[in-house]
Order: sequence, then structure tokens, then C-alpha cells
Amino acid sequence: MELTALDDHLVDHDVDGYLIDADSTDPNQRYLSGFDAPDPFLTCYTPDGLAVLVSGLEYSRAVTESRADTVKRPTDYDRRRLLSEYGPTEATHRINSAFLADCGVDSVFVPDRFPLSTADGLREQGHTVSVDTDDVLMDIRAVKHADEIDHIRAAQRANETAMAAAESLLAAASIDNDRRLSHEGKPLTSERVKHEIEATLLEDGYGLDSTIVAGGAQAADPHDRGSGPLQADEAIIIDIFPQDKTTGYHADMTRTFCVGEPSETISEWYALTERALDAALGAVEAGASGADVHAAACEVYEDAGLPTFRTDPSTETGFIHTTGHGVGLAIHEQPRLGTEGGELEAGQIITVEPGLYDPDVGGVRIEDIIVVTEAGYENLTDYPRDVVVD
Amino acid sequence: MELTALDDHLVDHDVDGYLIDADSTDPNQRYLSGFDAPDPFLTCYTPDGLAVLVSGLEYSRAVTESRADTVKRPTDYDRRRLLSEYGPTEATHRINSAFLADCGVDSVFVPDRFPLSTADGLREQGHTVSVDTDDVLMDIRAVKHADEIDHIRAAQRANETAMAAAESLLAAASIDNDRRLSHEGKPLTSERVKHEIEATLLEDGYGLDSTIVAGGAQAADPHDRGSGPLQADEAIIIDIFPQDKTTGYHADMTRTFCVGEPSETISEWYALTERALDAALGAVEAGASGADVHAAACEVYEDAGLPTFRTDPSTETGFIHTTGHGVGLAIHEQPRLGTEGGELEAGQIITVEPGLYDPDVGGVRIEDIIVVTEAGYENLTDYPRDVVVD
Repeated sequence: MELTALDDHLVDHDVDGYLIDADSTDPNQRYLSGFDAPDPFLTCYTPDGLAVLVSGLEYSRAVTESRADTVKRPTDYDRRRLLSEYGPTEATHRINSAFLADCGVDSVFVPDRFPLSTADGLREQGHTVSVDTDDVLMDIRAVKHADEIDHIRAAQRANETAMAAAESLLAAASIDNDRRLSHEGKPLTSERVKHEIEATLLEDGYGLDSTIVAGGAQAADPHDRGSGPLQADEAIIIDIFPQDKTTGYHADMTRTFCVGEPSETISEWYALTERALDAALGAVEAGASGADVHAAACEVYEDAGLPTFRTDPSTETGFIHTTGHGVGLAIHEQPRLGTEGGELEAGQIITVEPGLYDPDVGGVRIEDIIVVTEAGYENLTDYPRDVVVD
Repeated sequence: MELTALDDHLVDHDVDGYLIDADSTDPNQRYLSGFDAPDPFLTCYTPDGLAVLVSGLEYSRAVTESRADTVKRPTDYDRRRLLSEYGPTEATHRINSAFLADCGVDSVFVPDRFPLSTADGLREQGHTVSVDTDDVLMDIRAVKHADEIDHIRAAQRANETAMAAAESLLAAASIDNDRRLSHEGKPLTSERVKHEIEATLLEDGYGLDSTIVAGGAQAADPHDRGSGPLQADEAIIIDIFPQDKTTGYHADMTRTFCVGEPSETISEWYALTERALDAALGAVEAGASGADVHAAACEVYEDAGLPTFRTDPSTETGFIHTTGHGVGLAIHEQPRLGTEGGELEAGQIITVEPGLYDPDVGGVRIEDIIVVTEAGYENLTDYPRDVVVD
């Protein structure tokens, strides 16, 4: 694993190593250690190599599965004597300190959410522990290696299968006299569609914390996951962001559907949002900034006379979020496509997801996931954009 | 919410408040705030009341859904000025400090994995931040309220439905000439059985990070989740620990099955493990210790001449784990049923799960989940213990 940027960062700040104490749901831990473990463990990176300190139970698995050059366990550091002499808390601190000494490390950078107890314990043992406020690992993780791109591409294929299952369910729905959707004699709810999505992903080895299936006024709140019966003629936002249970990598895609007849406003909003998406995609290339891409989407909406956060920071309708975000081991990571978005680099994987919202109209969002390239981008998304389901 | 034990703890240590900075997957955060949010937020408890500091996006939901007496957001603390004057990191620290001042708090206890950046930032602003090494919230959480017991009881019902689905799948399997199990013409694998379990739980609104379906030598490693084709005549351990997606509470149960003819050793081990389970259950009551319950299980195995961690701490066969653990918002919490397990209290919910392991034989484990009562226990588990599936 080549981490020149991390080496340089440590040298620049005169710090010996980078230390993580987390389980592998933490993206930095998973990335650096390459180890998938349910309980927290220590990973110490120095320009000379990578070492992990894991429980005895995880030792042999860490030897074969982790990226570490050196695997240590508490019994390597006289655990029993330390326990009886100092009790469990200080024994742990002394074991951690001995592990760092083994790595040749006095001072360490740590992520901002590094556990206080571990930090204070190491400080008591004479180590210098500082938060890496630049969050260099976040920037390193943003640019994907070829195998990471493959993992995300695979996740996006599973995502499309799930989206197709959801769309088929909408297409199979019938419309009752109150313009409510029903399926197999029962009201078709957001929950039922979400279940279809989750079950499809599960079958392919993917999990998700949540999914958005939100219709009508619910879709006008980008944070509402949606619940209850779905209506015909309303815009229904479906936003799916699954995680591969094996690799840990995510995909992310949104489509907006309508069963029946969309209102004129929804149809206009949909056409505008497609144009905003295409404009934003057209602005993507290595060297452009996240702010440029966001501006391209905003301009389409602003030219149509609709509010954005750029024209009115307090607006609650219109385009009320940023244009996109990085995707990887975390579902939201660097880079960000907003007013403060910095320079894009080839190999970054980002979503592009303009949308419009108003409780009186509903919500419309279209989201693709792409890889930034030198010349532009490669779109990892292979799913139609049609709004009307039939 | 009555938290007399927390009030007393703060007074005893002359600390003004208890502070958490975590999202609600953190059991302490979920417990104290009563709020389910995907991003980290601050919860400050004092004997005078509970306050949360959440993002503007979560504000209105926190007002209606959290347990807090006071809900604050960064804009309440002059966020825009602080941002331009100090930049994002120090602005956050100053907002956090102003929030604590609002709560009338100078000094705080925090959990051991409290984020270092928040702690150091508050210290720079003049606050005293110390890790609560006694972990008082862990002890408080161990004794369940009536509604928590109801949540776990409901999760255990869903768990039994999933176990029944898995057992039915085993019962429907046929045995080929190599004594391999097959189902609908394909080899029956651990993965297929896990899928059946997960799909059943999903239907009921439950999620799980993982499930154990491990046969043969795999079952001899309590940490092996199991993979690949299942064999007849071998012991198959199924350990399911689902979490209710709405309430956050877990259940936990293990059964061991055999399709075909178990070996004599497996049958003996199963009978012994049932006796160890009954002995351990018989030792449970308020006032007994976790060590007593563990001893009761160990004695059954030791009397039969099998090794335990008590007789041989380095053994890799026999009874090689503790007898059980608390279950709640975390799948593993207080109390612990091991050699150092302290006094049990009425209202604690624990697993009792003796087992035997040897790669040459396989693994056998039976696990029930129970509530400790003054007179003994109430068993929340309603599932047969039969080993042979037919």
C-alpha cells in the first residue's frame, strides 16, 4: 500500500506515526488496516510499515487477512502482570504504549473522533497524541484505486437490480378511486417498496441502514425516508445507497417515479433537474472544482427562476442541498460538490444529484454516481431516467 | 427518566454533568437522549435536566422525538460569526462550550470512547473533561425498565420466527451420497440458511450485522460465522442476534441442530450442555453473582472430565467462553457471566449459553435469553431444544 501523501504529512508535521483505535465499520480503520473486525483494535502506520494490535481471538485472522506487516496481541506485552499490577484500564494504556514503542513511535496523529480514554492513557505514558485536523486520510481515501472502483461498480450493479425491483413493483400497482396505489389488494406503501429493495439487495450480499422511498409532500424533505401509502400522480423519490457486506464499499443512486399523470409542475421540474444533472456532469473533470460543478447545477435552476442556497441561504424550497459527495467505504466522504468544494482529482468517485423541493409540489431528484477522469468522467450508473412508470 | 444513580455518581465525583458526543448507534447516546439520529450530536445530562445540541436539519425532529428538556442547534450560538472568526474546528469547540455553559456545566464526565477532538476543544475553552472510568451508564443500562423488557421480548419473538425458518430449511434438506445437505437440487450452504434467517427478520422489521450458521469443524470456533456446504450428521450451530430497527433493542438465541445421525460424542455433548444450561439457569437470581452462574455451568463440564477456562486458561477445546452477557441496546453489555462477574440485579436481561468445542468433534451451544428476578428468572425464550431435525 503506497501512502506517500501520508508519509509526507507525517514528515511535514514532525509526527512519528498515525494511530487508529476503532472497529472496521470506521472507514479509516478499514482502509488502513484492510481488516474486517467487529471490535475495536489499534492500527499504527509509520513510513516503515503497518502494525495492528488485536485481541487474541482475532490474532490468526489478522495475520492472514489484514494488510499489516506486524500483528501483535496483548499477551505479547506481559498482559497478565500488567493486569494484576495496574488493573484493566491502566494495563490497557501500558500495553498500547508498549505497542507504539515497538513501532518506534513516540508522537502520533489520530482522527478527530479517536477515543479519549486511549489518547489520555497514551499521554500519561509519555506519548504525544494530536488530532490530525487536516484529516489527511479523508483526502487520501477520496481518490480510489482500481480495485476500489471495481468494488463500487459492483455495488452499483446491485443497486440497479434493486431499483428495477422497486420500479417493477410501482409498475404493477393499480390505482384505486382515491388515486391511492395498491398491490395485490393491499395499499402499496413506502415500507413495502423499501422491503422489496432490501430483500433484493440482501440476496446479492448487500446491506443498507436505510433507503428513501418518499412520495408527495414527504419527498419535499430530503431527510424524510418516507412512510405510509403511496399516491398516484405524485412524484416518488427512491434513493438507494447499499453497502457490500464483504468489501465495505457503497453505491448510491436516486430516481424519481410517477405512477399515473404527473402534474405540469412536476414534469417541468423533472425536465429542469435532468438539465441540471447534465450541466453538472458536463462541468466534471480533473482540475475543475466541486464548487464549479455545484454552480453548473444551480445556474440551471436559477435561470428558471427557482431559489437555490446560493441565491437565498434560508430558502426552504427549490434546490436546498449540495450537488453531490464522494462515495467509498463511507456513504458520504470527500470530495464535496458545494460552494466550498475544492479541486477534483481523477479517480475520485462522486454522486451528482440535483433536485427540487416544495411541500406544495413534492420533490424531484436524479442522482448518478461517476468516476472523475482527466478528460471528464465515467458514469458508473446504467439506469433509465424516465419519470413515468408504466 | 429517573437516573438517581447517575445523579449520585456526579455528586460523588464533584462533576457537573455527563456529556455524550455520538450518533444513536451508540447505546449510551440512544439510552440517554432517546433520539434516533444518523449523525453525531451532543447530549448533556445534569441532575437538573437533559439537553441536546443537534444540527439544524434534525432540530424539529429532536424537539418532538427526543427525551431532552432543551433542544439547541448551532445557530443558537452565533455560528456564522464564530465560523468566520475562528474557522470550522474552533467554531465547533466554542459552540460546544457555549452549549455546556447554557447547561450550567463546567466539568463533565464522558464515556471512554468520547471523541478526542471534542474533548481537547472543550479543554481549550476551560472545561474539565474526564473519562468516567467506572462507566456508570453501562451499569444503569444493565437493569431494564418494563418497556425495555417488552422491546427485547418482542425481538425474541422475531428471533424465534427466524430460527424456525432456518430449522424448516434444514428439515426440508435431502442428504446426498457424500452426506452433504442439499435443497431444491443445490447444495445447502451456511449462506443459504443465513439468507433465510435475514429475510425472515427483515420482513418483521429487524436487522442484523451477522448471524452464525456453522457446521462441523467451523462450529468448533465460536467466532467463525460459517460458510460453504453443510453436512449431514454434523452439529450445526445457529446463533441469531437481531436488532429491532425501530427500538434499537436486541434479542439473542442459539440452537444446535443435526440432520441425520449425530455421533455418540455430539449426543453426549448435547446432553451435557443441556445440563450445564439448566444448572446455570438454576443459579440465577437477584443477589447471586455472574461468577456463581458461570461456575454452575463449568462444574457440569468439569465433572464430566472436560476442560474449561477455569481448569485450564489456555485450553482450545472444551468450554472456552464465558456463560453469558447482558443484552439491550448493545448486543453485548453488562452484566457478564464469567469468573469476574459481579452481583446480579432483578431486571437485568442476560443470555445463558454454555457450549463445547473441539475441531475433531465440532461445536455444540444452547443459548436462552432471560430476565433476572428476585426469586430466580423469567425465561424470554420459547423454542424447543431438540438437536435432531426431522
